[in-house]
Amino acid sequence: MTDITTVTVLGTGVLGSQIAYATAYAGFDVVAYDIDEPALEKARERFAGLVTTYEAEVDGAAGGKAEAGLARINVTSDLAAAVADADLVIEAVPESLEIKRATWTAVGAAAPERTIFATNSSTLLPSDFMEATGRPDRFLALHFANRIWVQNTAEVMGTPKTDPAVYATVVDFAREIGMVPIEVKKERPGYVLNSLLVPLLNAASALWVDGVADVETIDKTWRIATGAPLGPFQIFDVIGMVTPYNIARTSDDPTQQKFAEILKRDFIDAGKLGAASGEGFYSYGA
Amino acid sequence: MTDITTVTVLGTGVLGSQIAYATAYAGFDVVAYDIDEPALEKARERFAGLVTTYEAEVDGAAGGKAEAGLARINVTSDLAAAVADADLVIEAVPESLEIKRATWTAVGAAAPERTIFATNSSTLLPSDFMEATGRPDRFLALHFANRIWVQNTAEVMGTPKTDPAVYATVVDFAREIGMVPIEVKKERPGYVLNSLLVPLLNAASALWVDGVADVETIDKTWRIATGAPLGPFQIFDVIGMVTPYNIARTSDDPTQQKFAEILKRDFIDAGKLGAASGEGFYSYGA
Repeated sequence: MTDITTVTVLGTGVLGSQIAYATAYAGFDVVAYDIDEPALEKARERFAGLVTTYEAEVDGAAGGKAEAGLARINVTSDLAAAVADADLVIEAVPESLEIKRATWTAVGAAAPERTIFATNSSTLLPSDFMEATGRPDRFLALHFANRIWVQNTAEVMGTPKTDPAVYATVVDFAREIGMVPIEVKKERPGYVLNSLLVPLLNAASALWVDGVADVETIDKTWRIATGAPLGPFQIFDVIGMVTPYNIARTSDDPTQQKFAEILKRDFIDAGKLGAASGEGFYSYGA
Repeated sequence: MTDITTVTVLGTGVLGSQIAYATAYAGFDVVAYDIDEPALEKARERFAGLVTTYEAEVDGAAGGKAEAGLARINVTSDLAAAVADADLVIEAVPESLEIKRATWTAVGAAAPERTIFATNSSTLLPSDFMEATGRPDRFLALHFANRIWVQNTAEVMGTPKTDPAVYATVVDFAREIGMVPIEVKKERPGYVLNSLLVPLLNAASALWVDGVADVETIDKTWRIATGAPLGPFQIFDVIGMVTPYNIARTSDDPTQQKFAEILKRDFIDAGKLGAASGEGFYSYGA
Protein backbone atom coordinates (compact mmCIF):
# COMPACT_ATOMS: atom_id res chain seq x y z
CA MET A 1 0.00 0.00 0.00
CA THR A 2 1.16 3.46 -0.82
CA ASP A 3 0.61 6.48 1.45
CA ILE A 4 -1.39 8.14 -1.31
CA THR A 5 -4.95 9.05 -0.36
CA THR A 6 -5.63 12.33 -2.16
CA VAL A 7 -5.07 12.65 -5.89
CA THR A 8 -5.43 15.73 -8.06
CA VAL A 9 -6.00 15.39 -11.79
CA LEU A 10 -5.24 18.42 -13.93
CA GLY A 11 -7.30 18.59 -17.10
CA THR A 12 -10.67 16.94 -17.56
CA GLY A 13 -10.64 16.09 -21.25
CA VAL A 14 -11.43 12.61 -22.52
CA LEU A 15 -8.54 10.92 -20.78
CA GLY A 16 -8.19 13.29 -17.81
CA SER A 17 -11.78 12.67 -16.82
CA GLN A 18 -11.27 8.92 -17.15
CA ILE A 19 -8.15 9.06 -14.95
CA ALA A 20 -9.94 11.12 -12.31
CA TYR A 21 -12.97 8.87 -12.31
CA ALA A 22 -10.99 5.61 -12.26
CA THR A 23 -9.00 6.91 -9.30
CA ALA A 24 -12.13 7.95 -7.40
CA TYR A 25 -13.82 4.66 -8.30
CA ALA A 26 -10.89 2.86 -6.65
CA GLY A 27 -11.57 4.73 -3.40
CA PHE A 28 -9.27 7.73 -3.52
CA ASP A 29 -10.33 11.31 -2.84
CA VAL A 30 -9.96 13.15 -6.11
CA VAL A 31 -9.76 16.80 -7.04
CA ALA A 32 -10.36 17.44 -10.72
CA TYR A 33 -9.06 20.75 -12.01
CA ASP A 34 -9.84 22.55 -15.23
CA ILE A 35 -9.44 26.13 -16.33
CA ASP A 36 -12.93 27.61 -15.98
CA GLU A 37 -16.55 26.92 -15.15
CA PRO A 38 -17.58 25.90 -18.69
CA ALA A 39 -14.76 23.32 -18.69
CA LEU A 40 -15.88 22.08 -15.29
CA GLU A 41 -19.46 21.81 -16.47
CA LYS A 42 -18.24 19.64 -19.34
CA ALA A 43 -16.25 17.61 -16.81
CA ARG A 44 -19.36 16.97 -14.73
CA GLU A 45 -21.06 15.64 -17.85
CA ARG A 46 -18.11 13.37 -18.60
CA PHE A 47 -18.12 12.00 -15.04
CA ALA A 48 -21.85 11.33 -15.20
CA GLY A 49 -21.29 9.54 -18.51
CA LEU A 50 -18.56 7.44 -16.94
CA VAL A 51 -20.91 6.37 -14.15
CA THR A 52 -23.31 5.08 -16.79
CA THR A 53 -20.50 3.40 -18.72
CA TYR A 54 -19.06 1.73 -15.64
CA GLU A 55 -22.49 0.49 -14.57
CA ALA A 56 -22.92 -1.07 -18.01
CA GLU A 57 -19.42 -2.39 -18.61
CA VAL A 58 -17.59 -2.88 -15.31
CA ASP A 59 -18.41 -5.86 -13.11
CA GLY A 60 -19.65 -4.75 -9.70
CA ALA A 61 -20.05 -1.08 -10.63
CA ALA A 62 -23.84 -1.12 -10.62
CA GLY A 63 -25.82 -0.91 -7.38
CA GLY A 64 -24.07 2.13 -5.97
CA LYS A 65 -20.35 1.65 -6.43
CA ALA A 66 -20.10 3.75 -9.60
CA GLU A 67 -22.16 6.52 -7.95
CA ALA A 68 -19.97 6.36 -4.83
CA GLY A 69 -16.93 6.94 -7.03
CA LEU A 70 -18.54 10.05 -8.45
CA ALA A 71 -19.15 11.37 -4.93
CA ARG A 72 -15.42 11.26 -4.19
CA ILE A 73 -14.60 13.79 -6.95
CA ASN A 74 -14.49 17.52 -6.28
CA VAL A 75 -13.97 19.91 -9.16
CA THR A 76 -12.29 23.29 -9.09
CA SER A 77 -10.80 25.88 -11.40
CA ASP A 78 -8.40 27.12 -8.69
CA LEU A 79 -5.09 25.41 -9.45
CA ALA A 80 -3.34 26.33 -6.19
CA ALA A 81 -6.27 25.09 -4.14
CA ALA A 82 -6.50 21.95 -6.29
CA VAL A 83 -2.99 20.82 -5.40
CA ALA A 84 -2.76 22.20 -1.85
CA ASP A 85 -3.36 18.83 -0.20
CA ALA A 86 -2.41 16.44 -3.02
CA ASP A 87 -0.35 13.33 -2.39
CA LEU A 88 -0.17 12.82 -6.15
CA VAL A 89 -0.85 15.20 -9.03
CA ILE A 90 -1.57 13.64 -12.42
CA GLU A 91 -1.43 16.14 -15.26
CA ALA A 92 -3.48 15.61 -18.42
CA VAL A 93 -3.57 19.11 -19.87
CA PRO A 94 -3.23 19.73 -23.64
CA GLU A 95 -0.10 18.37 -25.39
CA SER A 96 1.70 21.68 -25.63
CA LEU A 97 5.13 22.15 -24.13
CA GLU A 98 4.24 25.74 -23.15
CA ILE A 99 1.02 24.71 -21.40
CA LYS A 100 2.75 21.81 -19.66
CA ARG A 101 5.61 24.00 -18.47
CA ALA A 102 3.32 26.75 -17.21
CA THR A 103 1.08 24.24 -15.45
CA TRP A 104 3.95 22.48 -13.72
CA THR A 105 5.58 25.74 -12.68
CA ALA A 106 2.34 26.72 -10.98
CA VAL A 107 1.94 23.29 -9.38
CA GLY A 108 5.51 23.29 -8.13
CA ALA A 109 4.91 26.61 -6.41
CA ALA A 110 1.70 25.48 -4.71
CA ALA A 111 2.00 21.78 -3.86
CA PRO A 112 3.25 20.40 -0.53
CA GLU A 113 6.74 18.94 -0.27
CA ARG A 114 5.40 15.38 -0.16
CA THR A 115 3.51 15.56 -3.46
CA ILE A 116 4.43 13.24 -6.32
CA PHE A 117 4.11 14.72 -9.82
CA ALA A 118 3.06 12.66 -12.84
CA THR A 119 2.36 13.67 -16.43
CA ASN A 120 0.12 11.69 -18.76
CA SER A 121 1.82 13.23 -21.82
CA SER A 122 1.72 10.95 -24.87
CA THR A 123 4.04 12.77 -27.23
CA LEU A 124 6.42 14.78 -25.03
CA LEU A 125 9.12 13.23 -22.88
CA PRO A 126 8.96 13.98 -19.17
CA SER A 127 12.52 15.30 -19.22
CA ASP A 128 11.34 17.99 -21.67
CA PHE A 129 9.62 19.80 -18.83
CA MET A 130 10.74 18.16 -15.57
CA GLU A 131 12.66 21.25 -14.47
CA ALA A 132 9.48 23.34 -14.54
CA THR A 133 8.28 21.45 -11.49
CA GLY A 134 11.24 22.62 -9.41
CA ARG A 135 11.40 19.05 -8.08
CA PRO A 136 12.43 16.76 -10.96
CA ASP A 137 13.25 13.97 -8.51
CA ARG A 138 9.55 13.71 -7.64
CA PHE A 139 8.39 13.85 -11.27
CA LEU A 140 7.75 11.12 -13.88
CA ALA A 141 5.31 10.07 -16.58
CA LEU A 142 2.26 7.91 -15.88
CA HIS A 143 0.59 7.21 -19.18
CA PHE A 144 -2.90 5.81 -19.52
CA ALA A 145 -4.79 4.47 -22.52
CA ASN A 146 -8.22 5.56 -23.67
CA ARG A 147 -11.12 3.51 -22.27
CA ILE A 148 -9.11 3.06 -19.10
CA TRP A 149 -11.63 0.63 -17.59
CA VAL A 150 -10.86 -1.86 -20.39
CA GLN A 151 -7.38 -0.94 -21.67
CA ASN A 152 -5.95 -0.85 -18.20
CA THR A 153 -2.28 -0.34 -18.90
CA ALA A 154 -0.47 2.40 -17.00
CA GLU A 155 2.99 3.00 -18.40
CA VAL A 156 5.38 4.35 -15.77
CA MET A 157 8.39 6.16 -17.22
CA GLY A 158 10.87 8.17 -15.20
CA THR A 159 13.62 10.55 -16.22
CA PRO A 160 17.27 10.17 -15.19
CA LYS A 161 16.40 12.44 -12.25
CA THR A 162 13.38 10.54 -10.95
CA ASP A 163 13.84 9.18 -7.42
CA PRO A 164 13.52 5.36 -7.59
CA ALA A 165 11.30 5.44 -4.49
CA VAL A 166 8.91 7.81 -6.25
CA TYR A 167 8.91 5.51 -9.28
CA ALA A 168 8.12 2.49 -7.10
CA THR A 169 5.30 4.34 -5.33
CA VAL A 170 3.67 5.27 -8.62
CA VAL A 171 3.91 1.66 -9.84
CA ASP A 172 2.12 0.58 -6.65
CA PHE A 173 -0.45 3.35 -7.01
CA ALA A 174 -1.21 2.25 -10.59
CA ARG A 175 -1.93 -1.21 -9.27
CA GLU A 176 -4.13 0.23 -6.49
CA ILE A 177 -6.41 1.86 -9.05
CA GLY A 178 -6.79 -1.35 -11.03
CA MET A 179 -4.19 -0.72 -13.69
CA VAL A 180 -1.48 -3.10 -14.90
CA PRO A 181 1.70 -1.08 -14.39
CA ILE A 182 4.05 -1.21 -17.36
CA GLU A 183 7.56 -0.39 -16.17
CA VAL A 184 9.35 1.56 -18.88
CA LYS A 185 13.00 1.59 -17.86
CA LYS A 186 14.27 4.38 -20.12
CA GLU A 187 12.66 7.43 -21.64
CA ARG A 188 11.28 6.52 -25.03
CA PRO A 189 8.93 8.48 -27.27
CA GLY A 190 5.78 6.39 -27.52
CA TYR A 191 6.56 4.47 -24.35
CA VAL A 192 6.13 0.72 -24.95
CA LEU A 193 2.64 0.57 -26.37
CA ASN A 194 2.84 3.22 -29.07
CA SER A 195 6.38 2.12 -29.94
CA LEU A 196 4.81 -1.20 -30.93
CA LEU A 197 1.49 -0.02 -32.28
CA VAL A 198 2.57 2.85 -34.53
CA PRO A 199 4.87 0.72 -36.75
CA LEU A 200 2.07 -1.81 -37.26
CA LEU A 201 -0.43 0.91 -38.14
CA ASN A 202 2.07 2.62 -40.44
CA ALA A 203 2.72 -0.65 -42.25
CA ALA A 204 -1.01 -1.25 -42.66
CA SER A 205 -1.71 2.25 -43.97
CA ALA A 206 1.23 1.93 -46.41
CA LEU A 207 -0.14 -1.34 -47.82
CA TRP A 208 -3.49 0.35 -48.34
CA VAL A 209 -2.24 3.68 -49.68
CA ASP A 210 0.09 1.84 -52.08
CA GLY A 211 -2.79 -0.27 -53.39
CA VAL A 212 -1.31 -3.60 -52.27
CA ALA A 213 -4.46 -4.77 -50.53
CA ASP A 214 -7.81 -3.44 -49.35
CA VAL A 215 -8.74 -2.64 -45.78
CA GLU A 216 -10.78 -5.79 -45.21
CA THR A 217 -8.02 -8.03 -46.60
CA ILE A 218 -5.34 -6.44 -44.45
CA ASP A 219 -7.45 -6.74 -41.31
CA LYS A 220 -8.48 -10.31 -42.07
CA THR A 221 -4.85 -11.34 -42.65
CA TRP A 222 -3.80 -9.90 -39.31
CA ARG A 223 -6.66 -11.49 -37.39
CA ILE A 224 -6.10 -14.95 -38.84
CA ALA A 225 -2.32 -14.87 -38.58
CA THR A 226 -2.06 -13.51 -35.04
CA GLY A 227 -5.39 -14.42 -33.46
CA ALA A 228 -5.92 -10.76 -32.58
CA PRO A 229 -9.55 -9.65 -32.32
CA LEU A 230 -9.02 -6.50 -34.40
CA GLY A 231 -7.07 -5.76 -37.55
CA PRO A 232 -5.13 -2.51 -37.96
CA PHE A 233 -7.96 -0.58 -39.58
CA GLN A 234 -10.36 -1.69 -36.89
CA ILE A 235 -7.82 -0.31 -34.43
CA PHE A 236 -7.79 2.99 -36.35
CA ASP A 237 -11.57 3.08 -35.97
CA VAL A 238 -11.28 2.57 -32.20
CA ILE A 239 -8.59 5.24 -31.86
CA GLY A 240 -10.49 7.64 -34.10
CA MET A 241 -9.07 9.43 -37.13
CA VAL A 242 -7.79 12.64 -35.58
CA THR A 243 -4.74 11.32 -33.74
CA PRO A 244 -3.54 9.14 -36.65
CA TYR A 245 -4.07 12.13 -38.94
CA ASN A 246 -1.95 14.37 -36.73
CA ILE A 247 0.82 11.76 -36.62
CA ALA A 248 0.73 11.04 -40.36
CA ARG A 249 0.66 14.64 -41.53
CA THR A 250 3.84 15.48 -39.61
CA SER A 251 5.68 12.42 -40.95
CA ASP A 252 8.62 12.72 -43.35
CA ASP A 253 7.39 9.66 -45.23
CA PRO A 254 5.51 10.55 -48.46
CA THR A 255 3.27 7.51 -48.05
CA GLN A 256 2.23 8.67 -44.59
CA GLN A 257 1.63 12.18 -45.91
CA LYS A 258 -0.64 10.71 -48.58
CA PHE A 259 -2.42 8.73 -45.88
CA ALA A 260 -2.93 11.98 -43.95
CA GLU A 261 -4.50 13.60 -47.04
CA ILE A 262 -6.90 10.69 -47.43
CA LEU A 263 -7.78 10.70 -43.73
CA LYS A 264 -8.56 14.42 -43.91
CA ARG A 265 -10.50 14.43 -47.17
CA ASP A 266 -12.40 11.13 -47.05
CA PHE A 267 -12.83 10.64 -43.33
CA ILE A 268 -12.45 13.68 -41.07
CA ASP A 269 -14.07 16.18 -43.44
CA ALA A 270 -16.79 13.62 -44.15
CA GLY A 271 -17.57 13.17 -40.46
CA LYS A 272 -16.26 9.62 -40.45
CA LEU A 273 -14.23 9.92 -37.27
CA GLY A 274 -14.15 6.26 -36.33
CA ALA A 275 -16.26 3.88 -34.30
CA ALA A 276 -17.43 6.54 -31.84
CA SER A 277 -18.95 8.57 -34.70
CA GLY A 278 -20.68 5.51 -36.18
CA GLU A 279 -18.40 5.29 -39.19
CA GLY A 280 -14.73 5.07 -40.02
CA PHE A 281 -13.11 2.42 -42.19
CA TYR A 282 -16.15 0.35 -41.23
CA SER A 283 -19.74 1.26 -40.36
CA TYR A 284 -20.99 0.78 -36.83
CA GLY A 285 -24.65 0.38 -35.92
CA ALA A 286 -26.23 3.20 -33.91
CA MET B 1 -15.20 -24.89 -58.63
CA THR B 2 -11.90 -24.85 -60.47
CA ASP B 3 -10.88 -27.47 -63.05
CA ILE B 4 -7.92 -28.40 -60.87
CA THR B 5 -7.81 -32.04 -59.80
CA THR B 6 -4.11 -32.93 -59.81
CA VAL B 7 -1.58 -30.84 -57.91
CA THR B 8 2.17 -31.24 -57.78
CA VAL B 9 4.15 -29.82 -54.89
CA LEU B 10 7.87 -29.33 -55.43
CA GLY B 11 9.91 -29.54 -52.26
CA THR B 12 8.85 -31.43 -49.15
CA GLY B 13 10.42 -29.36 -46.40
CA VAL B 14 8.41 -28.12 -43.43
CA LEU B 15 6.04 -25.98 -45.47
CA GLY B 16 6.13 -27.97 -48.73
CA SER B 17 5.01 -31.10 -46.91
CA GLN B 18 2.22 -29.14 -45.18
CA ILE B 19 1.02 -27.74 -48.53
CA ALA B 20 1.06 -31.18 -50.15
CA TYR B 21 -0.76 -32.78 -47.26
CA ALA B 22 -3.38 -30.01 -46.89
CA THR B 23 -4.12 -30.29 -50.62
CA ALA B 24 -4.47 -34.08 -50.47
CA TYR B 25 -6.56 -33.81 -47.29
CA ALA B 26 -8.95 -31.56 -49.23
CA GLY B 27 -9.47 -34.33 -51.81
CA PHE B 28 -6.96 -33.52 -54.55
CA ASP B 29 -4.55 -36.01 -56.08
CA VAL B 30 -1.09 -34.84 -55.07
CA VAL B 31 2.36 -35.59 -56.38
CA ALA B 32 5.11 -34.55 -53.97
CA TYR B 33 8.52 -34.12 -55.51
CA ASP B 34 11.90 -33.92 -53.86
CA ILE B 35 15.41 -34.38 -55.12
CA ASP B 36 16.34 -37.89 -53.96
CA GLU B 37 15.25 -40.92 -52.00
CA PRO B 38 16.59 -39.71 -48.61
CA ALA B 39 14.56 -36.50 -49.06
CA LEU B 40 11.49 -38.56 -49.98
CA GLU B 41 11.97 -40.78 -46.94
CA LYS B 42 12.01 -37.66 -44.79
CA ALA B 43 8.88 -36.48 -46.63
CA ARG B 44 7.07 -39.73 -45.80
CA GLU B 45 7.89 -39.14 -42.13
CA ARG B 46 6.57 -35.59 -42.32
CA PHE B 47 3.33 -36.77 -43.94
CA ALA B 48 2.85 -39.44 -41.27
CA GLY B 49 3.42 -36.79 -38.63
CA LEU B 50 0.83 -34.55 -40.26
CA VAL B 51 -1.74 -37.37 -40.13
CA THR B 52 -1.18 -37.56 -36.38
CA THR B 53 -1.33 -33.78 -36.02
CA TYR B 54 -4.51 -33.46 -38.05
CA GLU B 55 -6.18 -36.26 -36.07
CA ALA B 56 -5.34 -34.41 -32.87
CA GLU B 57 -5.98 -30.83 -33.95
CA VAL B 58 -8.36 -30.74 -36.91
CA ASP B 59 -12.08 -31.32 -36.42
CA GLY B 60 -13.26 -34.34 -38.39
CA ALA B 61 -9.79 -35.56 -39.30
CA ALA B 62 -9.86 -38.61 -37.05
CA GLY B 63 -11.70 -41.77 -38.06
CA GLY B 64 -10.09 -42.20 -41.46
CA LYS B 65 -10.15 -38.81 -43.15
CA ALA B 66 -6.57 -37.90 -42.27
CA GLU B 67 -5.37 -41.33 -43.44
CA ALA B 68 -7.36 -40.99 -46.66
CA GLY B 69 -5.55 -37.73 -47.36
CA LEU B 70 -2.22 -39.48 -46.99
CA ALA B 71 -3.29 -42.13 -49.51
CA ARG B 72 -3.80 -39.45 -52.16
CA ILE B 73 -0.12 -38.41 -52.09
CA ASN B 74 2.44 -40.01 -54.40
CA VAL B 75 6.08 -39.11 -54.00
CA THR B 76 8.74 -39.04 -56.68
CA SER B 77 12.23 -37.71 -57.35
CA ASP B 78 11.59 -37.51 -61.11
CA LEU B 79 10.73 -33.88 -61.78
CA ALA B 80 9.49 -34.32 -65.35
CA ALA B 81 7.24 -37.20 -64.32
CA ALA B 82 6.04 -35.20 -61.29
CA VAL B 83 4.62 -32.39 -63.41
CA ALA B 84 3.58 -34.40 -66.51
CA ASP B 85 -0.11 -34.42 -65.57
CA ALA B 86 -0.28 -31.44 -63.17
CA ASP B 87 -3.12 -28.94 -63.31
CA LEU B 88 -1.25 -26.86 -60.77
CA VAL B 89 2.38 -26.91 -59.64
CA ILE B 90 3.19 -25.32 -56.28
CA GLU B 91 6.90 -24.80 -55.75
CA ALA B 92 8.36 -24.77 -52.25
CA VAL B 93 12.05 -25.44 -52.96
CA PRO B 94 14.82 -23.62 -51.04
CA GLU B 95 14.84 -19.79 -51.12
CA SER B 96 17.65 -19.45 -53.65
CA LEU B 97 17.12 -17.57 -56.88
CA GLU B 98 19.37 -20.06 -58.71
CA ILE B 99 17.46 -23.09 -57.43
CA LYS B 100 14.11 -21.46 -58.16
CA ARG B 101 15.15 -20.53 -61.70
CA ALA B 102 16.56 -23.97 -62.48
CA THR B 103 13.48 -25.67 -61.06
CA TRP B 104 11.05 -23.53 -63.04
CA THR B 105 13.03 -23.91 -66.25
CA ALA B 106 12.76 -27.68 -65.88
CA VAL B 107 9.06 -27.48 -65.00
CA GLY B 108 8.32 -25.18 -67.95
CA ALA B 109 9.92 -27.71 -70.27
CA ALA B 110 7.97 -30.68 -68.92
CA ALA B 111 4.52 -29.47 -67.84
CA PRO B 112 1.41 -29.53 -70.06
CA GLU B 113 0.11 -26.33 -71.60
CA ARG B 114 -2.80 -26.13 -69.16
CA THR B 115 -0.66 -26.16 -65.99
CA ILE B 116 -0.77 -23.23 -63.60
CA PHE B 117 2.51 -22.39 -61.87
CA ALA B 118 2.71 -21.07 -58.31
CA THR B 119 5.67 -20.30 -56.08
CA ASN B 120 5.51 -20.27 -52.29
CA SER B 121 8.60 -18.04 -52.09
CA SER B 122 8.65 -15.85 -48.97
CA THR B 123 11.53 -13.53 -49.71
CA LEU B 124 11.82 -13.39 -53.52
CA LEU B 125 9.30 -11.68 -55.76
CA PRO B 126 7.64 -13.84 -58.42
CA SER B 127 8.76 -11.44 -61.16
CA ASP B 128 12.36 -12.21 -60.16
CA PHE B 129 12.07 -15.60 -61.84
CA MET B 130 8.80 -15.62 -63.80
CA GLU B 131 10.61 -15.74 -67.14
CA ALA B 132 12.29 -19.03 -66.21
CA THR B 133 8.91 -20.72 -66.55
CA GLY B 134 8.64 -19.75 -70.22
CA ARG B 135 4.99 -18.92 -69.45
CA PRO B 136 4.90 -15.93 -67.10
CA ASP B 137 1.19 -15.39 -67.82
CA ARG B 138 0.44 -18.67 -66.01
CA PHE B 139 2.75 -17.95 -63.08
CA LEU B 140 2.15 -16.26 -59.71
CA ALA B 141 2.93 -16.55 -56.01
CA LEU B 142 0.78 -18.54 -53.60
CA HIS B 143 2.20 -18.06 -50.13
CA PHE B 144 1.27 -20.18 -47.16
CA ALA B 145 2.02 -19.80 -43.46
CA ASN B 146 3.53 -22.41 -41.19
CA ARG B 147 1.02 -24.64 -39.40
CA ILE B 148 -1.24 -24.36 -42.41
CA TRP B 149 -4.12 -26.18 -40.69
CA VAL B 150 -4.39 -23.34 -38.16
CA GLN B 151 -2.84 -20.30 -39.86
CA ASN B 152 -4.85 -20.84 -42.99
CA THR B 153 -4.00 -17.74 -44.97
CA ALA B 154 -2.95 -18.19 -48.60
CA GLU B 155 -1.59 -14.97 -50.05
CA VAL B 156 -2.10 -14.79 -53.82
CA MET B 157 0.25 -12.34 -55.55
CA GLY B 158 0.64 -12.05 -59.31
CA THR B 159 3.17 -10.22 -61.44
CA PRO B 160 2.27 -7.63 -64.08
CA LYS B 161 2.29 -10.54 -66.56
CA THR B 162 -0.04 -12.90 -64.68
CA ASP B 163 -3.26 -13.68 -66.56
CA PRO B 164 -6.18 -12.47 -64.40
CA ALA B 165 -8.02 -15.72 -65.10
CA VAL B 166 -5.09 -17.68 -63.70
CA TYR B 167 -5.09 -15.42 -60.62
CA ALA B 168 -8.81 -15.98 -60.11
CA THR B 169 -8.44 -19.75 -60.47
CA VAL B 170 -5.71 -19.85 -57.83
CA VAL B 171 -7.85 -17.76 -55.45
CA ASP B 172 -10.65 -20.30 -55.89
CA PHE B 173 -8.25 -23.21 -55.46
CA ALA B 174 -6.97 -21.74 -52.21
CA ARG B 175 -10.53 -21.66 -50.95
CA GLU B 176 -11.07 -25.26 -52.09
CA ILE B 177 -8.25 -26.48 -49.89
CA GLY B 178 -9.61 -24.67 -46.84
CA MET B 179 -7.48 -21.56 -46.99
CA VAL B 180 -8.60 -17.97 -46.68
CA PRO B 181 -7.29 -16.41 -49.89
CA ILE B 182 -5.55 -13.09 -49.33
CA GLU B 183 -5.61 -11.13 -52.56
CA VAL B 184 -2.40 -9.13 -52.85
CA LYS B 185 -2.98 -6.71 -55.71
CA LYS B 186 0.62 -5.64 -56.36
CA GLU B 187 3.95 -7.31 -55.88
CA ARG B 188 5.27 -6.48 -52.44
CA PRO B 189 8.18 -8.02 -50.53
CA GLY B 190 6.64 -9.67 -47.48
CA TYR B 191 3.19 -9.83 -49.08
CA VAL B 192 0.58 -8.55 -46.62
CA LEU B 193 1.30 -10.61 -43.54
CA ASN B 194 5.04 -10.13 -43.21
CA SER B 195 4.71 -6.48 -44.24
CA LEU B 196 2.64 -6.07 -41.07
CA LEU B 197 4.38 -8.50 -38.78
CA VAL B 198 8.03 -7.61 -39.35
CA PRO B 199 7.67 -3.94 -38.28
CA LEU B 200 5.94 -5.02 -35.07
CA LEU B 201 8.63 -7.59 -34.31
CA ASN B 202 11.39 -5.10 -35.15
CA ALA B 203 9.85 -2.52 -32.81
CA ALA B 204 9.61 -5.09 -30.03
CA SER B 205 13.19 -6.28 -30.44
CA ALA B 206 14.40 -2.66 -30.47
CA LEU B 207 12.62 -1.90 -27.18
CA TRP B 208 14.27 -4.93 -25.64
CA VAL B 209 17.75 -4.50 -27.11
CA ASP B 210 17.72 -0.82 -26.11
CA GLY B 211 16.78 -1.73 -22.53
CA VAL B 212 13.46 0.13 -22.53
CA ALA B 213 11.47 -2.80 -21.21
CA ASP B 214 11.81 -6.50 -20.59
CA VAL B 215 10.32 -9.26 -22.71
CA GLU B 216 7.43 -10.02 -20.35
CA THR B 217 6.48 -6.33 -20.03
CA ILE B 218 6.49 -5.80 -23.80
CA ASP B 219 4.37 -8.89 -24.40
CA LYS B 220 1.94 -8.04 -21.60
CA THR B 221 1.50 -4.51 -22.91
CA TRP B 222 0.65 -5.79 -26.38
CA ARG B 223 -1.78 -8.42 -25.13
CA ILE B 224 -3.69 -6.02 -22.89
CA ALA B 225 -3.77 -3.14 -25.36
CA THR B 226 -4.78 -5.13 -28.43
CA GLY B 227 -6.47 -8.22 -27.02
CA ALA B 228 -4.07 -10.40 -29.02
CA PRO B 229 -3.35 -13.83 -27.53
CA LEU B 230 0.41 -13.54 -28.02
CA GLY B 231 2.90 -10.75 -27.52
CA PRO B 232 5.76 -10.17 -29.96
CA PHE B 233 8.27 -12.36 -28.14
CA GLN B 234 5.75 -15.17 -27.88
CA ILE B 235 5.40 -14.81 -31.67
CA PHE B 236 9.20 -15.07 -32.02
CA ASP B 237 9.02 -18.30 -30.05
CA VAL B 238 6.36 -19.69 -32.40
CA ILE B 239 8.31 -18.68 -35.50
CA GLY B 240 11.57 -19.99 -34.07
CA MET B 241 14.82 -18.05 -33.83
CA VAL B 242 16.48 -18.93 -37.13
CA THR B 243 14.33 -16.89 -39.51
CA PRO B 244 14.33 -13.75 -37.32
CA TYR B 245 18.10 -14.15 -36.96
CA ASN B 246 18.58 -14.33 -40.71
CA ILE B 247 16.44 -11.24 -41.21
CA ALA B 248 18.10 -9.26 -38.40
CA ARG B 249 21.68 -10.06 -39.33
CA THR B 250 21.20 -8.74 -42.86
CA SER B 251 19.55 -5.52 -41.65
CA ASP B 252 21.25 -2.12 -42.03
CA ASP B 253 19.92 -1.10 -38.62
CA PRO B 254 22.55 -1.38 -35.84
CA THR B 255 19.86 -2.27 -33.30
CA GLN B 256 18.72 -5.17 -35.46
CA GLN B 257 22.33 -6.28 -35.92
CA LYS B 258 22.72 -6.28 -32.16
CA PHE B 259 19.51 -8.28 -31.88
CA ALA B 260 20.97 -10.80 -34.36
CA GLU B 261 24.10 -11.16 -32.21
CA ILE B 262 22.00 -11.83 -29.12
CA LEU B 263 19.80 -14.32 -30.96
CA LYS B 264 22.89 -16.18 -32.16
CA ARG B 265 24.83 -16.18 -28.89
CA ASP B 266 22.12 -16.58 -26.28
CA PHE B 267 19.49 -18.53 -28.17
CA ILE B 268 20.57 -20.40 -31.30
CA ASP B 269 23.98 -21.47 -29.99
CA ALA B 270 22.34 -22.39 -26.68
CA GLY B 271 19.78 -24.61 -28.37
CA LYS B 272 16.92 -22.27 -27.48
CA LEU B 273 15.28 -22.28 -30.87
CA GLY B 274 11.77 -21.35 -29.78
CA ALA B 275 8.64 -23.15 -28.68
CA ALA B 276 9.28 -26.23 -30.84
CA SER B 277 12.61 -26.79 -29.05
CA GLY B 278 11.04 -26.36 -25.60
CA GLU B 279 12.68 -23.02 -24.92
CA GLY B 280 13.02 -19.61 -26.49
CA PHE B 281 12.21 -16.31 -24.79
CA TYR B 282 9.96 -18.47 -22.60
CA SER B 283 10.14 -22.08 -21.44
CA TYR B 284 7.63 -24.58 -22.72
CA GLY B 285 6.75 -27.79 -20.93
CA ALA B 286 7.79 -31.01 -22.64
